[in-house]
Order: sequence, then structure tokens, then C-alpha cells
Amino acid sequence: CWKMLTVAMCMALLGCLQAQELRGHVSVILLGATGDLARKYLWQGLFQLYLDEAGKDYSFSFHGAALTSTKQGQAFVAKVLESLSCPEDVAPDRCAELKGQFQRLSAYRHLATSEDYVALSKDIEAQVQHGGLREAGRIFYFSVPPFAYADIARNINSSCRPGPGAWLRVVLEKPFGHDHLSAQQLATELGGFFREEEMYRVDHYLGKQAVAQILPFRDQNRKALDGLWSRHHVERVEIIMKETVDAEGRTSFYEEYGVIRDVLQNHLTEVLTLVAMELPHNISSSESVLQHKLRAFRALRGLQKGSAVLGQYQAYSEQVRREQQRPDSFRSLTPTFAGVLVHMDNLRWEGVPFILMSGKALDERVGYVRILFRNQAYCVLSDERWVADQSQCLPRQIVFYIGHGELGSPAVLVSRNLFRPSLPSESWKELGARPGLRLFGRPLSDFYAYRPVREQDAYSVLISRIFHGRKDSFVTTEHLLASWGFWTPLLDSLAHEVPRLYPGGAENGHLLDFEFGGAQLCFSQQQPEQLVPGPGPAPMPSGFQVLKAKYRESPLISAWPEELIAKLADDIEATAVRAVRRFGTFHLALSGGSSPVPLFQQLATRHYGFPWAHTHLWLVDERCVPLWDPESNFQHLQTHLLQHIRVPYYNIHPMPVHLHQRLCAEEDQGAQTYASEISALVANSSFDLVLLGMGADGHTASLFPQSPSGLDGEQLVVLTESPSRPFQRMSLSLPLINRARKVAVLVMGRVKREITMLVSRVGHEPKKWPISGVLPSSGQLVWYMDYEAFLG
Amino acid sequence: CWKMLTVAMCMALLGCLQAQELRGHVSVILLGATGDLARKYLWQGLFQLYLDEAGKDYSFSFHGAALTSTKQGQAFVAKVLESLSCPEDVAPDRCAELKGQFQRLSAYRHLATSEDYVALSKDIEAQVQHGGLREAGRIFYFSVPPFAYADIARNINSSCRPGPGAWLRVVLEKPFGHDHLSAQQLATELGGFFREEEMYRVDHYLGKQAVAQILPFRDQNRKALDGLWSRHHVERVEIIMKETVDAEGRTSFYEEYGVIRDVLQNHLTEVLTLVAMELPHNISSSESVLQHKLRAFRALRGLQKGSAVLGQYQAYSEQVRREQQRPDSFRSLTPTFAGVLVHMDNLRWEGVPFILMSGKALDERVGYVRILFRNQAYCVLSDERWVADQSQCLPRQIVFYIGHGELGSPAVLVSRNLFRPSLPSESWKELGARPGLRLFGRPLSDFYAYRPVREQDAYSVLISRIFHGRKDSFVTTEHLLASWGFWTPLLDSLAHEVPRLYPGGAENGHLLDFEFGGAQLCFSQQQPEQLVPGPGPAPMPSGFQVLKAKYRESPLISAWPEELIAKLADDIEATAVRAVRRFGTFHLALSGGSSPVPLFQQLATRHYGFPWAHTHLWLVDERCVPLWDPESNFQHLQTHLLQHIRVPYYNIHPMPVHLHQRLCAEEDQGAQTYASEISALVANSSFDLVLLGMGADGHTASLFPQSPSGLDGEQLVVLTESPSRPFQRMSLSLPLINRARKVAVLVMGRVKREITMLVSRVGHEPKKWPISGVLPSSGQLVWYMDYEAFLG
Repeated sequence: CWKMLTVAMCMALLGCLQAQELRGHVSVILLGATGDLARKYLWQGLFQLYLDEAGKDYSFSFHGAALTSTKQGQAFVAKVLESLSCPEDVAPDRCAELKGQFQRLSAYRHLATSEDYVALSKDIEAQVQHGGLREAGRIFYFSVPPFAYADIARNINSSCRPGPGAWLRVVLEKPFGHDHLSAQQLATELGGFFREEEMYRVDHYLGKQAVAQILPFRDQNRKALDGLWSRHHVERVEIIMKETVDAEGRTSFYEEYGVIRDVLQNHLTEVLTLVAMELPHNISSSESVLQHKLRAFRALRGLQKGSAVLGQYQAYSEQVRREQQRPDSFRSLTPTFAGVLVHMDNLRWEGVPFILMSGKALDERVGYVRILFRNQAYCVLSDERWVADQSQCLPRQIVFYIGHGELGSPAVLVSRNLFRPSLPSESWKELGARPGLRLFGRPLSDFYAYRPVREQDAYSVLISRIFHGRKDSFVTTEHLLASWGFWTPLLDSLAHEVPRLYPGGAENGHLLDFEFGGAQLCFSQQQPEQLVPGPGPAPMPSGFQVLKAKYRESPLISAWPEELIAKLADDIEATAVRAVRRFGTFHLALSGGSSPVPLFQQLATRHYGFPWAHTHLWLVDERCVPLWDPESNFQHLQTHLLQHIRVPYYNIHPMPVHLHQRLCAEEDQGAQTYASEISALVANSSFDLVLLGMGADGHTASLFPQSPSGLDGEQLVVLTESPSRPFQRMSLSLPLINRARKVAVLVMGRVKREITMLVSRVGHEPKKWPISGVLPSSGQLVWYMDYEAFLG
Repeated sequence: CWKMLTVAMCMALLGCLQAQELRGHVSVILLGATGDLARKYLWQGLFQLYLDEAGKDYSFSFHGAALTSTKQGQAFVAKVLESLSCPEDVAPDRCAELKGQFQRLSAYRHLATSEDYVALSKDIEAQVQHGGLREAGRIFYFSVPPFAYADIARNINSSCRPGPGAWLRVVLEKPFGHDHLSAQQLATELGGFFREEEMYRVDHYLGKQAVAQILPFRDQNRKALDGLWSRHHVERVEIIMKETVDAEGRTSFYEEYGVIRDVLQNHLTEVLTLVAMELPHNISSSESVLQHKLRAFRALRGLQKGSAVLGQYQAYSEQVRREQQRPDSFRSLTPTFAGVLVHMDNLRWEGVPFILMSGKALDERVGYVRILFRNQAYCVLSDERWVADQSQCLPRQIVFYIGHGELGSPAVLVSRNLFRPSLPSESWKELGARPGLRLFGRPLSDFYAYRPVREQDAYSVLISRIFHGRKDSFVTTEHLLASWGFWTPLLDSLAHEVPRLYPGGAENGHLLDFEFGGAQLCFSQQQPEQLVPGPGPAPMPSGFQVLKAKYRESPLISAWPEELIAKLADDIEATAVRAVRRFGTFHLALSGGSSPVPLFQQLATRHYGFPWAHTHLWLVDERCVPLWDPESNFQHLQTHLLQHIRVPYYNIHPMPVHLHQRLCAEEDQGAQTYASEISALVANSSFDLVLLGMGADGHTASLFPQSPSGLDGEQLVVLTESPSRPFQRMSLSLPLINRARKVAVLVMGRVKREITMLVSRVGHEPKKWPISGVLPSSGQLVWYMDYEAFLG
């Protein structure tokens, strides 16, 4: 015990000595020091860092660097440094003194060649040594265009890394790519020079005080929020950034990006994850916060074309033509307004609409996150007598007010009928009364309202966090790619979408209001007369009629893929409702493969009236792999349909391909077992509906050309061989399929064009073309083909 | 063809001749003609009938009858007849003339003995014959107390039925019984005298103009409502009747009934069915309307105690004591206020809250049905700029305003952002502007608002409908019993519930506001200090701490039931998270029975972070019934847990008690199959957690005292016999249970007190007390007992 004490004491002593002996020094190199961002925010942020941290454990030096000539650069920096401001509570004399100190620590240098970087590094080393300091770390702030990144990164990595024991932090500004692929390329490139923990990608929204308060607020009000923060209580979440300005003067940038890449993919998505993520036990652990955030990304339901509405202010195309010398005929498709409906596929948020919206040339400038809770009360008193802090029928909301708008400052608002929130009193104070001010439909007095004691610019906040190594306030490579992975499919699907034109400002009226039904968004008002001729190609004749014809003497329904799937889903539901009404149950046999996936999604997300509780789901065919194998047909069904609906467990009938821990062994009699299950449960073994596909070789179910079994005979379920992996299959037989009351064959895509042509001409040749053997003995056969499969 | 034409023509001719030849005569006998209801409404209603119908196809005579002496009765009736009023648009002279005619057709008669009835009938026959008329029918309006029904009914049936070819209609006033049994008795009794089609049970709410307009409104606005009238769009339906008066002077009646029997069981339920029923194709068919209404009754989800909140105005008990000479200590439990949450179990309405509320001594008198639609829009414009008829974000509602309140008359209101409704212009007209008037949170100008061209009393409306044989405006026996069938279980369960006391009027403040979470209702505010000493037992001390101790040398956790379940759920989640972190999966074996149900609910609705995707669910025991049998343990699991979470299908392991369409047959080797499944998937056959219960006989799992198998030996899973139905069981064996890493035993309720005491003292005697054999060989055992089980 004595020994241990000694060691502990020694170590403590040593720690003290070391810290006393060599004071740490941090060098900040601001790349692009003469640029706009630097002038407006970054120098001020560095000054703030100096004010907060100097005189504690570290000393600093600040190196403004750019390609600008030394003389011009020095003049620029001198001017900027002169314009710096101190916090309100610092007396002018003291401020002048502090600015003087900061100016002495700051210098401009021309930084272009690799020699320049070597020199910079040497200068820093000399400075450290000269001051009797220990180098703690270097911060390189990239305030330069992305094309310059690689060169600078290479120079830093090869010539300007600090010595051992000191850290390197490089700070990067967006854009971080244009889509998933370019973001990945950029990340790979930077990854060649820096380690992940060295990179700090800035999303300045994360430095906005109200945004930075979301997690601490959730943490400090855990008890009150625990029962509220879920689909059981939240009606909707709105994440909004409205601008009044337009893109004039910036169209060359904007034309490449548009509002989704500019605002939604980064700022609004970051905010979304902060609201939606599970709250870590310890929010001061960067690692834990980042992990939970990543899980929130993974729970995002994929977006489809119908998840968004797009707009473009009317003057935009003309601005682009002017600024980029485009011809008179040019019409841009770049959206300057977007509303997107996001859903989370997890137990906490399932079904809660997250509405993301941003636009330029709108009626007001404001940013906020609004969590609106459901009204689950009935208030007996007449509504004129309701009292704000007592009536549960008045709106209940929590708002993180990011800034601007009526309020003019960041704020956190909590309806008084919810709870009195706890906020750190050293940094947030109650907002004074503002009679007459209404927010979100209620007077300000209906809220507990807090504003920051000291308003801080986002960059100042973030520079401090870089210095403290708070990685969770920045975008990691993993998060960046997760976000692009989420947004890219939507962006691709919208690439040729014509945005609705809007006049701008208050004149927009209700033109941009949008509504959601299920997962689809649409504008509330019908497309009005275009104000000027709309950009882009004339819209497809929408509502192109679903085509009805004959194919192999049976009814054929043909349409564009989306309409075809919608029609098929409607038909299946109608069949199901009829069957349940007549027989009490609906027996549906579904095929595997990728074609039915959009159908499953359609059924899962659009057909609330489907009688799932009375539906039995059977498999048409299965691959001999365990049910949880990604190759399993059942697994598709599980992921795209079963997860989203409520079919009772015992109404689900996967094929028994995995009995006694082995796959499709003859002696396990899986096929026979399935057959007797069908015989026992399905009246007359006649399914109400069998959904089939058609392979490019004419196979259907897992009945392949020349199959020795399943094409005729007595067997209801058979084991078969596929020409492609996994070879072993289980399949319903043709005779069983043909007993169905209804058979639907879904055929989609250009690759099916040839077989569609061919099969249209052949007779009844199931040995050669198994699909030609599909001919329900007393039921109905209907073909569903998209135009590409049918018309080529 | 010629022949047919002749026959048809003849019949038409004959019809004309008959009608011309003998004019139809209708006699109306008002029983209780000198009562309050007759004086206030019924005579006026009969006068209105005369005004509407006389001079068309029928002649009338009106017989006021009662037990009052002839002289007194004549004087009373003469006075009432003198006070009758004509519609506004009839000139005074003409009115006097019409009243004179009606007076001449009306007479009072003493009606007591069966001879009196015989005489009445004779007089009617004579009148008909004398006038050269044909008797069309007789209406007997029972405005008498229910105890008099049987006698009168017997007399009518035996002596006063009209001759062949003429109809009999008897009109009955509520109450129609006190619960399902008494209603049935009353119905059976009346059924001995009258046929179903002869009986017209009045619910005067069905004659209220706004209520009577519900179905026609739905019919005439089918197109607009089709897309709106379902759970996809309706947020809630409120069916409300508020009164300012209290029960003073009527407590002898009220004390027997209370607000649910007085208002909810009849008036509000009738309105509910009109809103919720599927709309018949032809609403002018009484039969079809009645059928659809009955189907709505069948879709009502059963009510539980938690579906209602009850109140009683503070002065009520004192009023009862005074009016009924009760002792000072008397406290009534009769509710004078009730809020009830009703759900419909059908595809159209699943999940939509129907809120029924009525009370006396409230702050205003008003009745309405309000259908509030969900806000599924985001409005981009700042909310001050929203316009009532364009913004989809302003409330969207349809209100059938029954009367009184701010508006002071019946009305139909439709928000302007919904659609412009169509109403029959001959009977409904647009309401004039009423500046400053707000209804349901919005100015009246936000609504398309209609009021009746001519306000009519409900009784006038209903008397006309009786005359026209519109059975759908009345309560049939089938409906009456369906309604009592719905309400009686709730009434029974609330019989001893202590209502919350409220002061009355506006002073109630928010005391009576109530909230719903799932199917439960509760008051929004905690029970305040009782204004006077409340009736019933004092509430339990809440917030009692969780107690930690030892039981049978293992850790014991004890608490009130709610805290205990919360603690157990937390512990299970923590165990799961640890297991998934260490092994990648969590194997949980769950017991059947009712004790775990609240645990399942807790896990389903509160534990969002539970790693369900990596959890395997096993059964500890199962009854040998099909999985979908309500007795099946798996079915409990399905309903209370699986429905709400997302465990992959193949991670769910029900016991194979139903193989080859038979139950627990030895030769199907279900137990062996389950055992090998466990061996294959669960490392070392050690579950991560086994949840057990303890029976009052000391059994656990389905291992009963003296069980020949499962208590020791090699078998992992065994078939056993239960002393109670269903006898056959499958169960994990003690040796398998004892291999678990952790075993939790949940014991709840006073009934377990004795066995808990006993088992605390016995040693290791599994043959006698199977629970005493639970002793994990290397795992941990924890007991979870609520205070009632542990402390008694």
C-alpha cells in the first residue's frame, strides 16, 4: 500500500512538473486568409479563441496565408485585424489592449510552393524553441476552393506536420462533393494525406447556438422528454431554413448545386440527426455521439422521387443567362426551393413526418426546428377560457429557433403547457416580454423562451470546438458518405424534374404549400398557369393512361413502371378485400426476385386499408439458403414488406428450405411439408392470388426450362435446379399455380423485351418455356408489363 | 304481353279508384296527454303534423288520453291547444283558423280500464264509418312512465288494434332499461304485445335538425368526403353535449341513471353511429340505413374501465341527501360528467379517437359533433399571411352544431379550406355574417356555415317521421340491445369508481380536461386537494421506492406493480444490450400467462433502444393449442409485444405444438425439434435470460408438482400435463432453465402471497414445489415481486 501511494504521488508530481516546465503552443494557419469568409468570420473567430484560451494552458500564433502577394496580404490582414470587435462586456481600453496582443501574434505570409510550406514549418519550430515552449499542435483552416485542397494537403502532409507528440488538425469547408461518388473520391484523396481524426469538416450550422443546444437540451431535460420524444407523442418535426435573398451573383456556384445540395444534404440533415438520434448516456463523449448519429442515418427510409417538391423563383433562369452568358432559350432546372418528407424506420419515429424545407426568394428569413406534439387531450372548458400553461389542447411545441425571423436571435422555446425546461443559466437566459409578438401561431408569452446570454457567431463556436477536439461538432467521412448515400438517389431521380416557378417573396402566396399522403409529397395547389414559359422539356403527358390490351389471349395491363406498380397494388388490394369479405381470409403467394420489390414497397407504404390481419402470405419459390441469407426470397419479403405491416406470425409461410439445420435435403421432406400446409390451410389448394415473374429464359417461379419436375404431375411443391447460383430451389408446381383463382404475372424492364416478344408467339410449351404453361384452369390470368418490357 | 299490360293497367286503375273512393283516416292517441312533455312539445308536434299533412291524402283525429279526470283533462288540453303556435310565415288570421280546425279534431278522454280502451276503439271505428273514411292507421304515443307500459300495451294489443289493412304504430320514450339485462326484459315484454315494425322508440336527438342532417350531408357530399372520411385524414371525432344546469329537482331519477345512461348510451351513441357507419348507397331506404348502423355497432371496440373519466359536481351529493332524505354521511358515486374514448375496429376508423363527453354544471350549454381532419400540409408562407380558404395548415373541420352555444341555433359548418358543401337549399340556408364570433378556435367567416330555413323542434321532426314510417329515425330492439351490450361492461366496471368532484360552471377551469394515450383516458391534471372530503377510499401512497432484499438467498427486487415492471424491463434491456455487445445476439426465453403482459407492453412502447434486430425470442412453455388460439402463450406475445416491435421473423421461435395439423402428438417429436433448434442456435444451450413466473401451487414454466418429466434428467424440452385446461403443455425442463446465464422470476398480486411465504421456507424440493428447483448452475437468479405478493 505504501508503495502504491508513492507511485501515484510521483506521477501526479511529474504531471505538474511537465506542465510547468514546457508550456504548450498552438499554431493556427488560416489558408485563404484574404478571402471573404476569413474577413467576415474566421479572423474574428480566431480572436475569440485567443480571448477564451490564451492565458490558460497554451500560447498561440496565428498565420494568415494565401496566394496574395505578401504586401497586399499584409495590408489586408492588418485592416481586418483592426476591425475586430471584443465581446460587449469588455471595456474599450481593455479591448484595444487585447487586440494589440492578438495583432502581435498574427502575421500574413505568402504560401504557394512546397518550399513555402517547409519554411512555414521551420518558422513555427523556431518560434516554439525560441519561446521555450512545447509544440502542442497545428490547426490548418482551409478557407480555399476545393480544387486547391489536394495541393495544399500534399504540402502539409509532406512538409508541415508538427513533430511527434503534437497534433495536426485540418479544417475543411464545404462543398464536400456533389454526390456520393464525388464525395467518396474527395474523401479518398484527402485520406491519402490525413488520418480521419485529423480532419474537421465544417458544417457551420452545427456551430449555430440553437443547433448546438439540441443535444444538451435533450440531455438536461431527459426526464421530461423521455415520455414525449417518440411517435406516440410527436405529430411532426419541421426543419426549416427560409431565405429572402436569391442566388443573384452566385449562380455559377448555385447552378451546379441547387437547394438540396446547398442546404438540405448538409445543414438540415445534420439537424435532423440531432433531433432523431437516440440520446447517448454521456453526450460529452464525441465518439458516442458520433456513433448514435450514424445509427440515425442508417434508420432513414430511402427517398423516392415522390418524397420531394421542387420550385424555382421566376427570375432565376434569367439571372443564370446573364451571369453565365447562356442563350435566350436556356432554362435552368436547378431548384431554388425544396420540400422533402423524411421518415425514419425505427420504433421511436416510425410514421412521424420529418419535413425539411428550404428556399430562396421566400417571404421571410428564418431558420428553425419545430417539434410539434400531438393533441391527445379533450378540453372541457370553452376554448376562449383556455389558459396557456394549463390547457393541453393548445399547441404543444418545442422550437430551436436558429435565428433571424420575427425573433431576430437564436432561441429555445418550450410551450408552457409542456414543462419548464432546464437550460444552463451561464449561457442561456430567459427572453424578456415582447408584447404582440406571435410565433408559430401563439403569443410569445405562451412559451418558456430562452436566448443566449452572449450571441456567438457559428464560426467562433466551431473554432473553439476544433481547438478542444470536439469531433462530434464536425462531419466525419462516415457521416458524409452516409448523408450522400441518403440524398444521391433522390437527386438522381429528380435530375430532370421541372421545378414549379414562383414569383418570389410574399407574392408566392400559397403556391409553394405542400401536402403529404403516406410517403408522397405534392403541392397543395394545382399547377397554375406558368408565369413565364417553364424550363426544360415539356412535362411527360402525366396520367398517361394505363393501357389495356390482350397478351396470350389474357388481359394485359401496361403503363410506366410507377403507374404499373400502383395499378397492380390496387388490384391486389381489391382482390384481397373481396376475398376477405367472401371467405374471411386471403391467400397470397408471392414470387422472389427484384421485380416485386417496388410492389412490396408500394403495398407497405400506401395501402393502409389492406386487410393484412386476414392475409396469409406464401412463397412461390425459394432459394435453398437460410431464411436470413441476403439471397433468400423471404429476406426480400421481410425487408420490404413484413417489416412495415402487421401480418400475424402464423399467417406467414416461408418455404421450409432449412430444416434440421440443413438445406433442402430430400429426406427432410420440406416440399411435402409445404404442400400439406397448403392443403390444410388453403381451401381446395386454390390460392386467391399468385404473383409470378418471367425470366429472360422464359422461366417462372423456380420452374426452369427442361425441369424434370413441377411442370406437370401431382406434386404441389417441388425441388428444382436453377441454371444460376444458388442452384437448388423450392418452387410451387405449375399444376398448383394453375389452381389459383387469379394469377398475375409482373414483367418489367427492357431486358425482358425479347422474351416478351417471343412468348407472345409460342403456344403451350411449358418444357421449353415454363411461363407458357401458366394457364389457370378456372381462375383468371392477368399480365402486368411496363412499357419497356412490352413496347421496348 | 297484351295480357300483362291489361293486368297492370287494371291494377293502376283500381288503385286510383280505391284511393278516391275512401279517404284514409289516421287516429293519434297521445297517452299522458296532460304531462310535461306533452304540454311542451308533443301537442305542438301533432299540430305541426296536421299542418303538414291534412288536406293531402289523409284525415286525422287526435285523442289526448290520461288518467286525469275528464274535466280536469279537458281543461288542461283546451289550455294547451290555445297556446299552440303556427310557423312564422303564417298570418295571424290564418293561424287562428288552423288552430280552430285542429281544436275541433282534438279531444281529451280519460283512459284507464280495459273498457276505456274498448270504448276508444269503438269510437274511432264509428268516426271512420261516419265520415265515409277508410282507417289507415293508429299512432299510440306513450308519454308515460315505463312502469305503466305493460298495462297500456296489453290493452292496446287486446282491445285497440285497428282493423285489417290499417297499421298500428306505438311510440315509446326512454329510458329503455338500465342495462343490457333490463333492456332485454323490457324488449321481451313489449315484444309480447307488438311486432318489431310497430314499435317506434324515440331518441329525440335523432330529431335534432343537425343530427338528422348527418346522413343526408354525407350522401350529398359523397364525392368530396370519399377521400376524407377515414383514419387517413380524420384526426379525431368529438361528440359533445354540455349542460349548464345541474340535476337539482331530478335527483331521484338521476341517481338511478347518471350521465352515461342518461346521455352517452343513447344520444351520443346514436350520433356516433351516424358519423362512423358505412354510407348506404341509398340512404332513403330505412332498412339499409338500419343495417349499416348495426354494422357500426358491431365494429365498436369493447370499453374498459380505463376508457372513461368520471366527474360529479360538488353540490350533487347534498342535493341527493336533501331530495331523498339520505343521512349526512351519504356520498353518491353517480357521475354527472363523463368523458369516454371510443375506438372502432374497422379499416376505415382504426386508431381514430372518438371522444364522447357530456356533463352537467359545465361552463356552457352546447351540443355538437366535430370532425377534425389532420394537418398533412406544410405551409411555406409565414402564418400571419395564411388565408382561410387557401391554407391547408389552418384547422380543417366539419361540425354538426346541434344547438345552443355561441351560435344559438342548429348549423352545419365546413372549413373553407376543405370544400364548399352542398345542402338542400329548401331547408338549409347560408348563415349571415356574425363579426367577432369565433367557433372552435376560428372566426365564423372561416366556415361555410348553414342553418335551417325553419327551425323545428326535434319532436315535430320525429312525429312527422313516425307518420311516414321512417323506422331509421328510431331505435330498433336490435340497436337498443347492441348499444347496451356496448355500454354495460363499462358501467359495471365503473360501478364503484369514485368520480372526481368539480365545483361547477367556469370555475371548473381545466379540472375536467382529459387526455388519452393508447386506449386509456385520464384527467390531465393530477387529482387536486379534494374540495370537500371525497367519497371512497384514500388513494395509495405513490412513489414508494424500489426495495432490494434477498429471497431464497438470491437477490429480490420489490416495488409497486408499475415500478416493478419498469425496473424489470430496464434490467432486461440492459442484459440484452450487454449480450449483443459481447456475443452479437441475445437469447430471451419468455413465459406465458397474464403476469408478463404489462411487461410486454412496457417493452413494446417504452424501450426504443432495445436491440430487437439481434434478439431471439423463445418460449418457456406453451399450451397445446394452435398458435392463433386465444389461449396460446404465443398469441399473448404476438398481441402485446411482436405487433409493436421488429424482430426478424426467423428470430422468433414459437414452440412446435402444432405439427402436421395436430397438437403435441408424441410422434411429431415437437419437443425434440425445439430442443435441437435450441442446441443449434443457442451457444451451450444457455439462454441469456429466462423469464419465469410462479403459480399458486408452486409450479413454474409448465412444470407442475409431481411432474414425471422435466424436473431432472437429460431432456431439454418436455411434454407435460397441467392440472387445469388445456391439460397438455410443452415446457423447457428445469435442467435447461438452470443452464441460463440469468433467470428472472416475476411474481405479482395478492393471490401469490401464500405461496411466496411458503416457498421462502422450503429447501430444494422440485418434485413438490417445482419453483424450488430453479437454481442456475453458473448463472444468476433474481426475484421480482410486487408488494402485494411479497408483503401481502
